[in-house]
Amino acid sequence: MRMNDIIEKKRDGQALTKEEINFFIEGYTNNSIPDYQASALLMAIYFQDMNDEERANLTMAMVNSGEQIDLSAIEGVKVDKHSTGGVGDTTTLVLGPLVAACGVPVAKMSGRGLGHTGGTIDKLEAIDGFHVELSSEQFVKQVNEIKVAVIGQSGNLTPADKKLYALRDVTSTVNSIPLIASSIMSKKIAAGAGAIVLDVKTGDGAFMKTTEDARKLAKAMVQIGNSVGRQTMAIISDMSQPLGRAIGNALEVQEAIDTLKGKGPDDLTELCLTLGSQMVVVGEKADTLEEARIMLQKAIDDGSALEIFKQFIKWQGGNEKVVDDTALLPKADFIFEVSAKNAGFVTYMEADEIGTAAMLLGAGRATKESEIDLAVGIMLNKKVGDQVDEGESLATIYANSENVQEVMNKLHENIHIEAERKEAPPLVYEIITE
Amino acid sequence: MRMNDIIEKKRDGQALTKEEINFFIEGYTNNSIPDYQASALLMAIYFQDMNDEERANLTMAMVNSGEQIDLSAIEGVKVDKHSTGGVGDTTTLVLGPLVAACGVPVAKMSGRGLGHTGGTIDKLEAIDGFHVELSSEQFVKQVNEIKVAVIGQSGNLTPADKKLYALRDVTSTVNSIPLIASSIMSKKIAAGAGAIVLDVKTGDGAFMKTTEDARKLAKAMVQIGNSVGRQTMAIISDMSQPLGRAIGNALEVQEAIDTLKGKGPDDLTELCLTLGSQMVVVGEKADTLEEARIMLQKAIDDGSALEIFKQFIKWQGGNEKVVDDTALLPKADFIFEVSAKNAGFVTYMEADEIGTAAMLLGAGRATKESEIDLAVGIMLNKKVGDQVDEGESLATIYANSENVQEVMNKLHENIHIEAERKEAPPLVYEIITE
Repeated sequence: MRMNDIIEKKRDGQALTKEEINFFIEGYTNNSIPDYQASALLMAIYFQDMNDEERANLTMAMVNSGEQIDLSAIEGVKVDKHSTGGVGDTTTLVLGPLVAACGVPVAKMSGRGLGHTGGTIDKLEAIDGFHVELSSEQFVKQVNEIKVAVIGQSGNLTPADKKLYALRDVTSTVNSIPLIASSIMSKKIAAGAGAIVLDVKTGDGAFMKTTEDARKLAKAMVQIGNSVGRQTMAIISDMSQPLGRAIGNALEVQEAIDTLKGKGPDDLTELCLTLGSQMVVVGEKADTLEEARIMLQKAIDDGSALEIFKQFIKWQGGNEKVVDDTALLPKADFIFEVSAKNAGFVTYMEADEIGTAAMLLGAGRATKESEIDLAVGIMLNKKVGDQVDEGESLATIYANSENVQEVMNKLHENIHIEAERKEAPPLVYEIITE
Repeated sequence: MRMNDIIEKKRDGQALTKEEINFFIEGYTNNSIPDYQASALLMAIYFQDMNDEERANLTMAMVNSGEQIDLSAIEGVKVDKHSTGGVGDTTTLVLGPLVAACGVPVAKMSGRGLGHTGGTIDKLEAIDGFHVELSSEQFVKQVNEIKVAVIGQSGNLTPADKKLYALRDVTSTVNSIPLIASSIMSKKIAAGAGAIVLDVKTGDGAFMKTTEDARKLAKAMVQIGNSVGRQTMAIISDMSQPLGRAIGNALEVQEAIDTLKGKGPDDLTELCLTLGSQMVVVGEKADTLEEARIMLQKAIDDGSALEIFKQFIKWQGGNEKVVDDTALLPKADFIFEVSAKNAGFVTYMEADEIGTAAMLLGAGRATKESEIDLAVGIMLNKKVGDQVDEGESLATIYANSENVQEVMNKLHENIHIEAERKEAPPLVYEIITE
């Protein structure tokens, strides 16, 4: 088999066989296929796409390129959730304990934040003492006992994907549905997921700017998952404005606790119930999404989800008292209100720009090496569709510096107020179950 | 300027600016742009093509990537001819003295043969004493005196093209009109051509298998040449069967001499007159192709072209007596006839396979390191359209070994004889003057 022939075949619009895809991924991982042939193939894939079978084969070839997490000692269908990334997305913190309360094991490997989006581990570390350094044995034991645990990324998972992603990044081949879908799915499967729920964001704050592109990506991933024996569902959700009201680590933990108490923002609560329903169904604890939703609502109402959150914190070394007394979370020194310059209606909030404003405060990382400040962030007091009086607070800035002019300006620029009311975009555009 | 943005721009079908193309070619030549970005861009060009301006800019960027031959000391418009490569293509040997006899300076840099196609220098070296190691001063002086000289390839011409060609070869990006056209044209321009005539071959023995593809390539090159101030014309000619009758170095020299004497094969003679007419016009020695053709015919008829061939051989150290006594050319030890197994008509002769048969005899090189035998080769006694009796000779093998069974078989397999007569394909499909 010659790489040149594989490139030519894909260039000419033909489907690659499983053997050809394996030859490419194995050769690229062990450096026998050079970057310049890989990038030519990636560009050919960009133009010629891959069919369903090729996408599934590419995904599994990347899974097989490295280690795989063995979660077989955990009882039940291990369900993982993946979001394509957004601003103020506190869902993982809520969903972990919430679906665990319905009996679905959540054995989650999480990462840290970069740029305008936050990371689950950073958020959890806002809880005093919380850590994600668990041994495999501890991890498995914890999930079997309380149904939920989060560990940091470890092991040499999907090295082919890591190498290919770095190459795609410098050869303008990132934005390709089969390449994005196989990259995401290979990571989830290598991390041990037995079933997967996907939150594909759409809008200006998301990687997929249009609903059409988001739908293509969601369908591609659901198809891959189902064809490799991991039941997969997806939703397409809005990221034209931030999700919920909190952006920043401690602030989002507080918001997650509120939501588990049934007092969270409407959009975050609704998204958690929608994604959670899919997780309960693919986790085989309910037959229908409607049935699952009732179970989830009950777990909030009867306090069982909140109780699991407490145990989860305790098991991972954190101070679980924070759940009853959120004043124990890190506090910023300075609070500033972002007041409306004129009356009207909020018509648009640019999610990525608002995420960047929080990053400038120190809530996120500009580069991988940046230190973050767990206390700082932004609380949105208005969302799209809300009426505003002149001088009323649009948002509250929590800072550890008095110099917040740049952040203040960024928020003013990116929270648009107009005379005419505009409907908020729908939260969930589409539910994809097959 | 970032290479990533340049790749993305081309990927999305936009035209690159002159500055962007120069950035790419300069960076790739000096190794600041890696192979993997170059190959991604090449594949994007494969799919998105380049417009006329981009093609001209790419050509000149490659010309400027290395040294350029300075032929300014030669009077007149220096005309170069390029063939995309065929079997038994003896035109350069005929055309040099022929157009020189019409006053057009031919200062030619030539190469050696590889695979199933021969090289001009190899053919000329079949003449005892002939060499192509001329100093620049000798080269210029010779062209000024007798209007024709041939030297071997020298100098660091178009290093960007050499590097890109090697990369295209291993990334399935060879077969792209803008890349082929700019590669050929950059080499001709760097070698000092003031005007260019192109013979684009089509058919099974050629790189361009269809007349449509050959037309695209020819038009692309003519457009590039004319837009960078080198008047360029082209023809599309047949390479579904070998050109002329001789394949092999000494045999082709003899055929060239016959042609200059007015006694050459019809197809070779016609092709030389067609290409020669274009050379005389772009060399500004005639206003029309018709006028040029009359001049060329006269140079054959009055012996002036043959006389220049003699001088050309003498100036470059060769024994010019060969022109009057072709028995002085190297002679093969063994002669075998390839007899027709049945009567009928020759309907098809696979040019590349017949070229390979000559290579197997030793007339051509299997690899760059192969030694060649100047005496051996094949004379075709029949061409497509000819009637054949059973037992009649289809071709004569000139060999320096008695073991010619493989060559004999290859010729039998690739000279098709059928009961029904088939017209020979047209020799010249199209003449492209702008």
